[in-house]
Amino acid sequence: MSPINETHDPALRSWVDSANRPDHDFPIQNLPFASFRRRGRDEPWRGGVAIGDAIVDLAALHRVQPFEGVAAQALAAAAQPQLNELMALGPAHWSALRLALSRALREGSAQRAVVEPCLVDQAEAEYGLPARIGDYTDFYTGIHHATAVGKLFRPDNPLLPNYKWVPIGYHGRSSSIGVSGQTFRRPLGQTKGPQDAAPRFGPCQRLDYELELGVFVGPGNALGEPIPMAEAEDHVFGVVLLNDWSARDIQAWEYQPLGPFLAKNFATTISPWIVTLEALAPFRVPFAHPEGDPQPLPYLDSPDNRARGGIDLTLEVWLQTEAMRRAGEPPHRLMASNFADAYWTVAQMVAHHTVNGCNLQAGDLLGTGTQSGPGEDQGGSLLELTCGGQKPVRLPNGETRTFLQDGDTVLLRAYAAGAGRARIGFGECAGTVLPAPALVV
Amino acid sequence: MSPINETHDPALRSWVDSANRPDHDFPIQNLPFASFRRRGRDEPWRGGVAIGDAIVDLAALHRVQPFEGVAAQALAAAAQPQLNELMALGPAHWSALRLALSRALREGSAQRAVVEPCLVDQAEAEYGLPARIGDYTDFYTGIHHATAVGKLFRPDNPLLPNYKWVPIGYHGRSSSIGVSGQTFRRPLGQTKGPQDAAPRFGPCQRLDYELELGVFVGPGNALGEPIPMAEAEDHVFGVVLLNDWSARDIQAWEYQPLGPFLAKNFATTISPWIVTLEALAPFRVPFAHPEGDPQPLPYLDSPDNRARGGIDLTLEVWLQTEAMRRAGEPPHRLMASNFADAYWTVAQMVAHHTVNGCNLQAGDLLGTGTQSGPGEDQGGSLLELTCGGQKPVRLPNGETRTFLQDGDTVLLRAYAAGAGRARIGFGECAGTVLPAPALVV
Repeated sequence: MSPINETHDPALRSWVDSANRPDHDFPIQNLPFASFRRRGRDEPWRGGVAIGDAIVDLAALHRVQPFEGVAAQALAAAAQPQLNELMALGPAHWSALRLALSRALREGSAQRAVVEPCLVDQAEAEYGLPARIGDYTDFYTGIHHATAVGKLFRPDNPLLPNYKWVPIGYHGRSSSIGVSGQTFRRPLGQTKGPQDAAPRFGPCQRLDYELELGVFVGPGNALGEPIPMAEAEDHVFGVVLLNDWSARDIQAWEYQPLGPFLAKNFATTISPWIVTLEALAPFRVPFAHPEGDPQPLPYLDSPDNRARGGIDLTLEVWLQTEAMRRAGEPPHRLMASNFADAYWTVAQMVAHHTVNGCNLQAGDLLGTGTQSGPGEDQGGSLLELTCGGQKPVRLPNGETRTFLQDGDTVLLRAYAAGAGRARIGFGECAGTVLPAPALVV
Repeated sequence: MSPINETHDPALRSWVDSANRPDHDFPIQNLPFASFRRRGRDEPWRGGVAIGDAIVDLAALHRVQPFEGVAAQALAAAAQPQLNELMALGPAHWSALRLALSRALREGSAQRAVVEPCLVDQAEAEYGLPARIGDYTDFYTGIHHATAVGKLFRPDNPLLPNYKWVPIGYHGRSSSIGVSGQTFRRPLGQTKGPQDAAPRFGPCQRLDYELELGVFVGPGNALGEPIPMAEAEDHVFGVVLLNDWSARDIQAWEYQPLGPFLAKNFATTISPWIVTLEALAPFRVPFAHPEGDPQPLPYLDSPDNRARGGIDLTLEVWLQTEAMRRAGEPPHRLMASNFADAYWTVAQMVAHHTVNGCNLQAGDLLGTGTQSGPGEDQGGSLLELTCGGQKPVRLPNGETRTFLQDGDTVLLRAYAAGAGRARIGFGECAGTVLPAPALVV
């Protein structure tokens, strides 16, 4: 796991003024990566690093060769249209590039004159998927979510017997993953109520979001060679926000016995900026299963994981309806939770995924599952916040929601803060529901 | 759907003599595609077409430019290291290339002198994955498999209520798909018997194969634009054999509520040769759900699908243990079934997969699910053939199997034949189990 080093010093300030605002997502202690280009121009995608309101264009920076050694190698990889090559290099390269960028962007840096011409205004940018995502896996690490959803189906026995032993996961769809700003049509599908004699076909009536983090895999492992816990985080590049859009009515009818399929694979939205694990180092917290719960099996346990396997990271869901948008009203916050409440850590996700020999590849994406908090108002989906559609959520403008309506925009946000540390923000993960297409028969 | 044309004429003979043997998998009426190179040489992968014991090297053929128009465009795409570009072109291109190759390979063809130098002996070749597989989906269309496996868990109610309405599917793992000849280590994992107080960790004890077909997707669809039944087969390039290796004990403990994960994603093996849907045109058969069963919803129905949605294709599983291999004994056939017994067709898999707007991409792979026949001796997995491990299978050399042992090689084979038509074979899909790795903790 990444140690604390000079790049985390909360006293650091950048010559990019906007990065020094105390409430900014992207201070010099963050330095997240994205794939970007300037909107409306015929120019290639390339890697960028956020600093305040600006982006360091890593392709432009690479052309002036400001760094040496492994930092220069990492910069060359980060200048590519997507970040798979950078991800494949591993922690020593990532850390060297972070240190070089941190030093170059600090107040008083001698490299300012070299770096400043490489800045692009974020307001001018559009973002692409930061990596070619070979495989996308979604875990289920939010025990409060698993319990709340389980209660809707099995009031007396909400958690299945495997939950506290197995970091439950399943494979998702890579092709329909989009970056913040994604719009998608309400899915069509089969649904069947418990009283219905036969299923009906039509637009989903119980469309929902799920608040998750997405973990980008760094160097992969060879088929048949599990990654042990002690090395797991060396295989993790960083973290994004992830909205696992879900069609609850389609899911209820289709998911037995092989799991969710069309209920999930119509769209998944991630935030463009990958916050590195190294940037989050000051916010690592001890991890333990509650007393009385089974302790992790040895292949899911390590001293480091117990000491600081968790991440103290606040997660939020915001909603802006079409009416709110037209009236110029800002998004409304629906809930907040913390990733420190997850039942399994990022390292455990990696170790479990590979223990059978399954091979991860650089750029693979691992979803954490919905991160609900312990409180009733901390559900990470509408299914939870509305008790399965029974208790509508009321919005400031008087509108209510049980599930999502056409035109609704859902925004996820996250930040780590406190204890005198610089605030590490994630930017935004926004997605908007469009009407269903005409029925096809 | 592909019509019958001159390329299917059973009277056609090739100037490649081996292709004219009546029992050959690769007569001139077949012309399947693979990605290949010669073993032990430092040369690039490229597309090839099987003809008898030979391969037409499509990169070499492309260099001499023997064809014109769309056939020439298709040949240029097929000369690439993998076949995604060819798959993306669509049926008009595929059909033109097939016709051009058929004419060039016929007895008496004026193009023999141009094509013959482009032949490579199959004995010299090794095969790669025929496409970059973006997403891999596995369906569950074998109703006899679903019933037999369901009986093991729920004797009175083997089929779940959604089975006859929904072409059940789930997402699988792309990274661990290998081509025939693949070896893989027995997976480690958590298992728990019904009487055990806690799970244990160790090598899988109930390792199994599954007999499936794999369907390679041709042109994809845009996100949000479902593919209707009438167009579904225009999005299908062809078919391979697929072995969905399965760890039954890991699966039983992990699969609730999100489906199989580590029980499947350690390895999937496919045959190298993609038999095109056009080659199978003479073997298309009517499709209908049994009388009294629900009829397909309109989005899963079409006149063409009813008239000839099925494929009359014999499927076989063969086993060769390490002891048999050492003794020079040939593989032993464990069972045979027919894809015409599937409960859902290839077109229905495509229409269902996309009805919610999910986007398919050229080179995506769709597994059909295990193809068991109606008879007790027609189980497409050992789980079925041994009644859940209760009745061992006896091999000719006296060995028995409930589940797979280290060193076992499983071979899948398939062919369409009969009614005076040329035999269309699939070649072989072989995979071998290696011992588990040392425990990692």
